[in-house]
Amino acid sequence: MHPFDPLTPEEISRASGIVRPHFGGQDPNFRVVTLQEPPKNHMIQFLEKEHRKQPTGPAPTRCARVEVVVKGYNRNNELFELLVDLDHDKVVKKQHQKGKHSYIDAAYMKSVEAACLANEEVQAEIRGLDLPPGSTVVVEPWAYATDGMNDMTQRVTMCWFYLRLIENEDANYYAYPLDVCAEVSEQLEVTKVYRLPTSPDERIHNKPRPFDRRRIHPTALSEYHPDLRPNPRTTTKPYQVVQPEGPSFRIQGQHVNWEKWSFRVGFNYREGLTLHDIRYDGRSLFYRLSLAEMFVPYGDPRAPYPRKAAFDLGNDGAGINANNLQLGCDCLGTIKYFDGWHNTASGEPMKLPNVICCHEQDDGILWKHTNFRTQNAVVTRARILVLQTIITVSNYEYIFAFHFSQDASINFEVRATGILSTVPLEFGLKEKVPYGTIVAPGVLAPYHQHLFSLRIDPAIDGQTNSVVVEESKAMPVGDQSVHNPFGVGYVTENRIVEQEGGFDLDFTKNRVFKFVNENNINPITNTPVGFKLLPAYSQMLLSHPNSYHAKRSEYCTHAVWVTSYEDNDHFPSGQYTMQSSGGDGIASSINKRNAAGTAQSVRNSDIVVWHTFGATHNPRIEDWPVMPNERMSVGLKPVNFFSGNPGLDVAVSTQENNKSVLVKDEDDKTDNVCCHSRL
Amino acid sequence: MHPFDPLTPEEISRASGIVRPHFGGQDPNFRVVTLQEPPKNHMIQFLEKEHRKQPTGPAPTRCARVEVVVKGYNRNNELFELLVDLDHDKVVKKQHQKGKHSYIDAAYMKSVEAACLANEEVQAEIRGLDLPPGSTVVVEPWAYATDGMNDMTQRVTMCWFYLRLIENEDANYYAYPLDVCAEVSEQLEVTKVYRLPTSPDERIHNKPRPFDRRRIHPTALSEYHPDLRPNPRTTTKPYQVVQPEGPSFRIQGQHVNWEKWSFRVGFNYREGLTLHDIRYDGRSLFYRLSLAEMFVPYGDPRAPYPRKAAFDLGNDGAGINANNLQLGCDCLGTIKYFDGWHNTASGEPMKLPNVICCHEQDDGILWKHTNFRTQNAVVTRARILVLQTIITVSNYEYIFAFHFSQDASINFEVRATGILSTVPLEFGLKEKVPYGTIVAPGVLAPYHQHLFSLRIDPAIDGQTNSVVVEESKAMPVGDQSVHNPFGVGYVTENRIVEQEGGFDLDFTKNRVFKFVNENNINPITNTPVGFKLLPAYSQMLLSHPNSYHAKRSEYCTHAVWVTSYEDNDHFPSGQYTMQSSGGDGIASSINKRNAAGTAQSVRNSDIVVWHTFGATHNPRIEDWPVMPNERMSVGLKPVNFFSGNPGLDVAVSTQENNKSVLVKDEDDKTDNVCCHSRL
Repeated sequence: MHPFDPLTPEEISRASGIVRPHFGGQDPNFRVVTLQEPPKNHMIQFLEKEHRKQPTGPAPTRCARVEVVVKGYNRNNELFELLVDLDHDKVVKKQHQKGKHSYIDAAYMKSVEAACLANEEVQAEIRGLDLPPGSTVVVEPWAYATDGMNDMTQRVTMCWFYLRLIENEDANYYAYPLDVCAEVSEQLEVTKVYRLPTSPDERIHNKPRPFDRRRIHPTALSEYHPDLRPNPRTTTKPYQVVQPEGPSFRIQGQHVNWEKWSFRVGFNYREGLTLHDIRYDGRSLFYRLSLAEMFVPYGDPRAPYPRKAAFDLGNDGAGINANNLQLGCDCLGTIKYFDGWHNTASGEPMKLPNVICCHEQDDGILWKHTNFRTQNAVVTRARILVLQTIITVSNYEYIFAFHFSQDASINFEVRATGILSTVPLEFGLKEKVPYGTIVAPGVLAPYHQHLFSLRIDPAIDGQTNSVVVEESKAMPVGDQSVHNPFGVGYVTENRIVEQEGGFDLDFTKNRVFKFVNENNINPITNTPVGFKLLPAYSQMLLSHPNSYHAKRSEYCTHAVWVTSYEDNDHFPSGQYTMQSSGGDGIASSINKRNAAGTAQSVRNSDIVVWHTFGATHNPRIEDWPVMPNERMSVGLKPVNFFSGNPGLDVAVSTQENNKSVLVKDEDDKTDNVCCHSRL
Repeated sequence: MHPFDPLTPEEISRASGIVRPHFGGQDPNFRVVTLQEPPKNHMIQFLEKEHRKQPTGPAPTRCARVEVVVKGYNRNNELFELLVDLDHDKVVKKQHQKGKHSYIDAAYMKSVEAACLANEEVQAEIRGLDLPPGSTVVVEPWAYATDGMNDMTQRVTMCWFYLRLIENEDANYYAYPLDVCAEVSEQLEVTKVYRLPTSPDERIHNKPRPFDRRRIHPTALSEYHPDLRPNPRTTTKPYQVVQPEGPSFRIQGQHVNWEKWSFRVGFNYREGLTLHDIRYDGRSLFYRLSLAEMFVPYGDPRAPYPRKAAFDLGNDGAGINANNLQLGCDCLGTIKYFDGWHNTASGEPMKLPNVICCHEQDDGILWKHTNFRTQNAVVTRARILVLQTIITVSNYEYIFAFHFSQDASINFEVRATGILSTVPLEFGLKEKVPYGTIVAPGVLAPYHQHLFSLRIDPAIDGQTNSVVVEESKAMPVGDQSVHNPFGVGYVTENRIVEQEGGFDLDFTKNRVFKFVNENNINPITNTPVGFKLLPAYSQMLLSHPNSYHAKRSEYCTHAVWVTSYEDNDHFPSGQYTMQSSGGDGIASSINKRNAAGTAQSVRNSDIVVWHTFGATHNPRIEDWPVMPNERMSVGLKPVNFFSGNPGLDVAVSTQENNKSVLVKDEDDKTDNVCCHSRL
């Protein structure tokens, strides 16, 4: 077992067993039993020895982090966080997280749904809608995004109503949002029922209003499930990836070796896929990479819609919501799947099958040169290794993939797909709604943002790194001290980040953020070895700085954050985002350290870089009824780290290996041969 | 024959034959014999009828545009441009382009090389270098980038010197730039020989200085050709694309039909691949798409380096320099190649084989949704159609590819690869050069920019289009007239472009450029049907506005240009870029129309949009000795054009079609089945 390996089923059972007796006979609801990752200062030494194939000495103490909920005073839920030493089978820390909430409890959400539908007042509203026969009301419970209107010590659930118009459980009920809304308390009481606004300037109210049957439209426009659709197009011919000698990767447990890359695959209920101890050709690059948070605030200003703002990692969990990936569906070629493990409410291990897939892809040309004097062409094809996980968060899907390349770069790709979250609108409106797009009769898809935080823990030839901000700048003209006679000269200017903080992108200056090791100067270029961030240029949070959205998310105001490394500091909007009231995020942490005088220089030290990126998603009708993927990509690329192109030794592309097929014109009798027949 | 089809070999011969007698017995040097594309006003009617399968009436007159060079007074080259009516076999226009130059003449460049090497003074300089035995001097002639130091009515060629250290014609001589420089006149006279600066502050001089043999380094660090390198890595296992039922495309002549897409493939010596009459599901999207220009100015301020600035289309030609693509090398799967035709100096047709390839690629997941209530997942895979061309311009390669997607979007991808242009530097410098990167001992790779212009001629449901600039903007807080009680609301604001001009990107405002048809309102969204540009965020030209680089390129100062459509207006730095002195580009054209009072509103009219993008390429040592591809991508995507997801009818992904292979753990006995076994 490696210290980075997720908890085994046996460890999960054992940790629960150790925790269980600590609640005075009450059977706690186990929300989380996960690996408490080992302290970095111990791990650095461990990894150094491991890679030198020396005895590693004792591994760090194996530790579980446990969250349980127990019933307290007034049947309130009380959250406790515990640390369990699995080497000595004991609880080493137990903390009452007063007023905090664990992530969304799917079983509890089902109770909310049931309680809501069973409520008299709700039933009266539904009767008032006079719904078409054969249709079914579906309640979609959402975690409450703090808006300052409720006491947040208890959970409140917002229930949105939809209509499943036809009798098929896979029918797309988001095509028929209903103008009913209910609020449900922690104790499963329906505390408020009202009608939603259905025009741009309307407010919530309680006037009964029947369902407008003019909204009913052909299923071909609103259904995505093939059982409910006309026959699909038949023009797309099969396309198969064949790897006759098997994959180029070697996987042992959680450790992956591929084309000079070496790293370990981690997994937890919250971040889902994590990557550890990433090296290329034996040299350390990153200690850890993970998606750290994701915030989806909606831009519809009308109450109660400001309560729609999801922390898809902190509240929902990218691990617990990861899809069970299936052969022939989510990737092509030769595929290795990784399972994850989580826990049941009673603390037993629960398998999450096939939550990560690992496979290779061809990625076009890696490099090519044709010597124009000899006409000899040399081409290599690019192979990438893909580590992919896909999550479903109610209506939406996110496809997250790390791509490793033979040129020693890494790309993190996000694809957003799935179904838009919709709200009701009066039928027949003939204007555009300023904060949403009408995607079907009586259906508004409100504007919203998806803001991701990619956490990058660099270890560029070691843990002591700096962040350099480089800009490309025209040399002055007419300045006698500068030789730029033709006005064409330009230079790069570097500024090293000295203090923790948030920074912005500026492509007009070709501003580049680099992670460098100032202690290791490349002997050819005379510059520190480094990697650079290829950012995704994105609009930051549109919510007002005084809004709860802004106070709770914090990381969404700057594209690049630099902080000092701290063990277990993985979450830029804080550990407990569920109905949080703000002040727990990355900006507050920095401010607190500055105020306390404990802030340390981030130059030449152990640092973490957080990249905020995403999309201001103003829906198109083309995103309906299911979104073609919307792609975002972030890159990490060596800059004067190696002594040359790391993919220079990739073998040239040959027809012998690739076995491509020529489409010949009928009158063409020539042979096409590979450019490397000579080689 | 279709009016958009390039000239046939027979037409090329015939056009030359018609032109030849027009030069008083002198045998002209035929530089260009290419299609003069038909007038749009005629073509629109023609295409309308063609797509309705009605008789099209007479096709537009078939016309050739011809450039010839003849010897004039003082053996000067005189350029003539002619138009030939091929329906009536006559010259309809003949124009002396006084003081202008056609694109680079490869045969002439070879004479320049020979003349340079034969020169006494050059030979004396070479002797003074005291070069290692067995090495060969290579002269690389470059077109002269105007810097105001010479009379530009005659061609001047800059000769850069390199050393081929070993006796192999494919050795990478860019690894040994020599500090010698020569200038060669139109009449093949060496007019100037001097030594280049070799330190950041040195100037050109004539002091002899022997080649510093400490620069000699292992070939493993400087060679890319497999014959000259250690054995390649053997870990990359074969990866094949199999299409058992053949490709999904149907190609007839230059016409391509694929997955509801229809378009025509064009080709000319300058732009290379062009696309015409692009439609999806029968609806018109774009009249024409092409890469229109590319400018590569270098940022080294020291004379004579300001003369390094290449118009890779205008001076070199993306068509004439297109690679002969080979099966098994440049793509995988089932591949259709298109040939191009150009002309010899004597006006005969010259085949350019396999200059364009067309094939399909799998592109990951197109869309997915898992119903969390039923756990039923529906996944479709994305197939794309790739039209690719690769050009070699001396040291560099560019891979240009249009990707057509099933969701009705188009991506234009550029990959830069090949070898950096290098200059000599003194051995052992221990500092960074501010405007370049040292990539090998005594070898500086100067900073430079690659700025592309993608010309987009939209035809969104017809030719009458407008450009809308949309921004996403927070709603005000505390303004009583605006309902935004929680400070989270945001809206889009639209501004329609009324006048021709250049515009800038701003991701901080989520600024989006759309091409819309204001006459066609989407009945569901209540907004004009449109497409949007997904730009590549890039730093614009760093050269000073008064520099020749800026005056000659013009399009490089703004990311988006909007102009009124004019026939044959294809080049944003002007028709004749070779040693141009400026004033012929897109900005000057707009200014001239404004000054003359002939500027027309670009709203609701026939418009062209030009996107400037690229890279400020400050080389990394990882780009050496051959660059792993540097990727840039521009997208065109429908926005409220259709009535829903255009890829909604793509069939779901199945293991039956995809035949993926499972990597099983040794202890795993379960079967993995496709997610669609139920369907």
